[in-house]
Amino acid sequence: MTYRPSIKDITFCLDHVIGMSDSYNTSAFPDFDESLRDAVLDAAGQLAGDVLAPLNRVGDLNGTNLDGDRVVVAPGFLDAIKAYAEGGWYGLAADPAFGGQGLPKMLEQACFDMFHGANMAFTLLPTLSQGSIEAIHAHGSQAQKDLFLPKLISGVWCGTMNLTEPSAGSDLAALTTKAEPNGDGTYAITGQKIFITWGEHDGAANIIHLVLARLPDAPKGTRGISLFLCPKYLLDSEGNKGARNTVKCVGLEHKLGIHASPTCVMSFEGAQAELIGPPNGGLAAMFTMMNAARLAVGFEGVGLADAAWQKAQAYALDRRQGKSLITGQDYAPIYDHPDVRLMLALMKAKLEAARAICMATAAAIDAAKVDEDNARHKRREDFLVPIAKAWSTDRAVEVASLGVQVHGGMGFIEETGAAQYYRDARIAPIYEGTNGIQAADLVGRKLGSDGVAARELEADIRSFLEINALKADFKAEFELLHAAVTAFSVASDHLLTQKTNAPLDVATGATTYLQLSGDLIGGWLLLKGALVAQSQLATGDAAWLNDRIKLARLFCAHTLSHAPAHLAAIKSGYGALDGLTLSLD
Amino acid sequence: MTYRPSIKDITFCLDHVIGMSDSYNTSAFPDFDESLRDAVLDAAGQLAGDVLAPLNRVGDLNGTNLDGDRVVVAPGFLDAIKAYAEGGWYGLAADPAFGGQGLPKMLEQACFDMFHGANMAFTLLPTLSQGSIEAIHAHGSQAQKDLFLPKLISGVWCGTMNLTEPSAGSDLAALTTKAEPNGDGTYAITGQKIFITWGEHDGAANIIHLVLARLPDAPKGTRGISLFLCPKYLLDSEGNKGARNTVKCVGLEHKLGIHASPTCVMSFEGAQAELIGPPNGGLAAMFTMMNAARLAVGFEGVGLADAAWQKAQAYALDRRQGKSLITGQDYAPIYDHPDVRLMLALMKAKLEAARAICMATAAAIDAAKVDEDNARHKRREDFLVPIAKAWSTDRAVEVASLGVQVHGGMGFIEETGAAQYYRDARIAPIYEGTNGIQAADLVGRKLGSDGVAARELEADIRSFLEINALKADFKAEFELLHAAVTAFSVASDHLLTQKTNAPLDVATGATTYLQLSGDLIGGWLLLKGALVAQSQLATGDAAWLNDRIKLARLFCAHTLSHAPAHLAAIKSGYGALDGLTLSLD
Repeated sequence: MTYRPSIKDITFCLDHVIGMSDSYNTSAFPDFDESLRDAVLDAAGQLAGDVLAPLNRVGDLNGTNLDGDRVVVAPGFLDAIKAYAEGGWYGLAADPAFGGQGLPKMLEQACFDMFHGANMAFTLLPTLSQGSIEAIHAHGSQAQKDLFLPKLISGVWCGTMNLTEPSAGSDLAALTTKAEPNGDGTYAITGQKIFITWGEHDGAANIIHLVLARLPDAPKGTRGISLFLCPKYLLDSEGNKGARNTVKCVGLEHKLGIHASPTCVMSFEGAQAELIGPPNGGLAAMFTMMNAARLAVGFEGVGLADAAWQKAQAYALDRRQGKSLITGQDYAPIYDHPDVRLMLALMKAKLEAARAICMATAAAIDAAKVDEDNARHKRREDFLVPIAKAWSTDRAVEVASLGVQVHGGMGFIEETGAAQYYRDARIAPIYEGTNGIQAADLVGRKLGSDGVAARELEADIRSFLEINALKADFKAEFELLHAAVTAFSVASDHLLTQKTNAPLDVATGATTYLQLSGDLIGGWLLLKGALVAQSQLATGDAAWLNDRIKLARLFCAHTLSHAPAHLAAIKSGYGALDGLTLSLD
Repeated sequence: MTYRPSIKDITFCLDHVIGMSDSYNTSAFPDFDESLRDAVLDAAGQLAGDVLAPLNRVGDLNGTNLDGDRVVVAPGFLDAIKAYAEGGWYGLAADPAFGGQGLPKMLEQACFDMFHGANMAFTLLPTLSQGSIEAIHAHGSQAQKDLFLPKLISGVWCGTMNLTEPSAGSDLAALTTKAEPNGDGTYAITGQKIFITWGEHDGAANIIHLVLARLPDAPKGTRGISLFLCPKYLLDSEGNKGARNTVKCVGLEHKLGIHASPTCVMSFEGAQAELIGPPNGGLAAMFTMMNAARLAVGFEGVGLADAAWQKAQAYALDRRQGKSLITGQDYAPIYDHPDVRLMLALMKAKLEAARAICMATAAAIDAAKVDEDNARHKRREDFLVPIAKAWSTDRAVEVASLGVQVHGGMGFIEETGAAQYYRDARIAPIYEGTNGIQAADLVGRKLGSDGVAARELEADIRSFLEINALKADFKAEFELLHAAVTAFSVASDHLLTQKTNAPLDVATGATTYLQLSGDLIGGWLLLKGALVAQSQLATGDAAWLNDRIKLARLFCAHTLSHAPAHLAAIKSGYGALDGLTLSLD
């Protein structure tokens, strides 16, 4: 059993949950239509299934090795990097002015959904490279864009993001890497960066490192951080590859998962760099990219959960054990034991909910582009991003864990492959802002002081309930959705009220509020899909469509039903943590 | 940071949650008193902290290797096996007639709590050996007991359990290993067994394999399984070690975790064995040991969760990052960020709840011994065992995952050690009957057709609420406990009613009913401890006692509050799974 590109599920989500057709032939995406969409998804599915998936276990087994300052990647990965570039995948949503295809974010992310499912460790390379493309596009000078973007977008070069330092992880204010003017307009970067994904490899002719560092006499804290561009090989005046710069990989981490992705300790030893954007504007530059980067991690969760579910589902259909209570059959496929089927159905329902949330986020990014005058789209995007990142990655860990469980004893054996998903998934709630940071962002900036984005979301869900109120088939589910949106509304009000007088209560409730929000939005979107599925039953693939309905019902009964409990936990606030010592003596 | 024996927490649980003193100087445990209890716990803590814990990472890194049919264990492990035997730990709760110390189950398991926390992979060896001691004690002839028990109890020999085969995992009815009479009263065993924990090693002079196999012409299914004793080295007529038997290890599994525990493929090639108990009585023999074995796995969860929490807590007190919202301090320990503290507090609350549930189960086993005429104790034991096993191990996976999260990026680096707990923990919900099997056992045999055990538990909790009704300090928590016990009561009634007319609904609801039961019992027992802690505040260690109260409150707000949602999920039944195809085409 290898990875199967989930084109059917993704297409249903795009068409019937998100409404992708709104972006067809718009001024933002003039050449985009259904046939192009299908062609891109098919090609992405082929790359995922034929090129990336077969390397997933190879990469896990071989990992990466440091030979001097050279990173040796797992067998087959250099060819895959080449195939990825040749397919033009770096440029899918990039600016056509620099060789990109200018397609919607949601289409790009639909492809990444499959790439991550096939091989998350590999896909981190283009994910990070795209991050650097977006940063240079948003903050670089015209000369910098002209020089760097075409080669990054074509995949001749790759890009990296260098933020974290040993003492500056979640708190970038503490970073100490220095940038000193060389007098010729360039800067000399000195310092050590850690956890640099794909920081060094031989898969590209050059590597463009984006680095956060401090100028001399920069203000303390986050207001004194600047963004620099530091290439592995310096460029001559014509932009051709020149001397090796003094930046190198000095260590690789031994990690729980994503073994094929080199996690580098990068040493900058007076490395020559140029400033991107204004002095001390580094953090602001990072912030403009953060939504895209965090959504990308959300899709890592979706893709990985999908792959973990597929493997478990295939095993459950194949493995026979005991007499089925469902069919009465002896030596039955374990899928026909209700407890096993429940695990698989919950896995699938949760991953589809995560997919819908992440796609809705991508759609909001696109909508903001299509309809620039409507601030509502940007607000929706901002509100959904931390949920897409944290809720999806928490679910990915859960789903991967259930995937191991479905396999029984075989799940604990590495050769089976289920354990790799359990290991790989565990990083996603941590990086690109821990899920705790996401929750703080949600109740802080995103809920804001007025709660407008939360109100708009609430209104959309209430309007969905009103419009469909007469559909008696879904009465039980609508009641649960109604209770959940009410809990969300009360929780939002509660947190808004507490912001000034009880910030500790707000901080303590943040993670639970994020979970409640994700459960609510996931349930709403699954029900949206279920209603469409029901309307197509007579003419479509009835078994497949019926599954959409049943998964939505299951998610409501098992997950959405917890909304009032989440509200109670949020309301309980900081009290139980106040003065808690938990000493280890 | 290494493992710290949790003697203070364990003692509080034994004294104030479980009421260990009920067993002091009883006819079942005539020489047992508080000073002996303390001496045993101290000695166990020393073994755990000084001998076992330092080998935990060594074992993970080195694993085990097969050299021919010899299993080479990780450095230091053979010495630890020797130290364990010399300390007399195999015999702690074993029959004094064969060299055991006849101490209570709950004391033995309190020691295992620490041993597993220090080194789960090692501790599986004595866990399995004790299983074989109990099986031979319960089902062997007097001659077999006289011959084997003293050497197993002293640790000169070790024992193993050989049940699983490639096609017979959860369903033992399918097992095919043959036992053919040799004509001299012995049998020749032929077949292959998999997943045999510590099936082969050089740490003991002999290994006594207990093996399930089929006699010629045995009935099909589980009624045709017999239990055999098959030693690695045959014994001469005086019981001295003789020729090597034809049983050997032919493979070791590559596992996600517990690397230091050899998981063997055992090949029986006409190996000489003797029958234990009556022909075709093998499964019945296994059943009598199952409660103890499953409780032992529950304690694996407790110990591992404790170790994972300790590591995360130590890191959070040490690692500094950002400004604390609690203290206003810059560069504050991350424990002073509410979100991080919430994770650590939830970890600790859940592990203490699991500890209390497992200890209550052990106490029921002891009580059944002290007060043999009272069937209530046995019913309580039977009802609690699947909850102790499944709820504790599910929590262990959760807690270990949170432990990784607390460490941020460092948690994903293997050298940190948090990832090992995440890997090691994952086996516990799978073996000794998957947690799905535990749930089926709970709603099947344990709830029974009359629900007496559930009613008795409910009555105990309602009586606790009545007795303490006036304690206004805990009003909110008592309300949550009241709602939870009501949900449990309704769920029990519902499942009892559905048993005959809707068995699929019962099977689908089983896992959620187990979770609801565990949440309820955990919350009740933590509150019991909190009330005692409150009464001691004036005279005891106030900070430590206050933590007990706060952890109980937190557990109620964040976990117990979900009981009504669990009830809703149980009531939703099988409907959403009916006809669900989830095909992979």
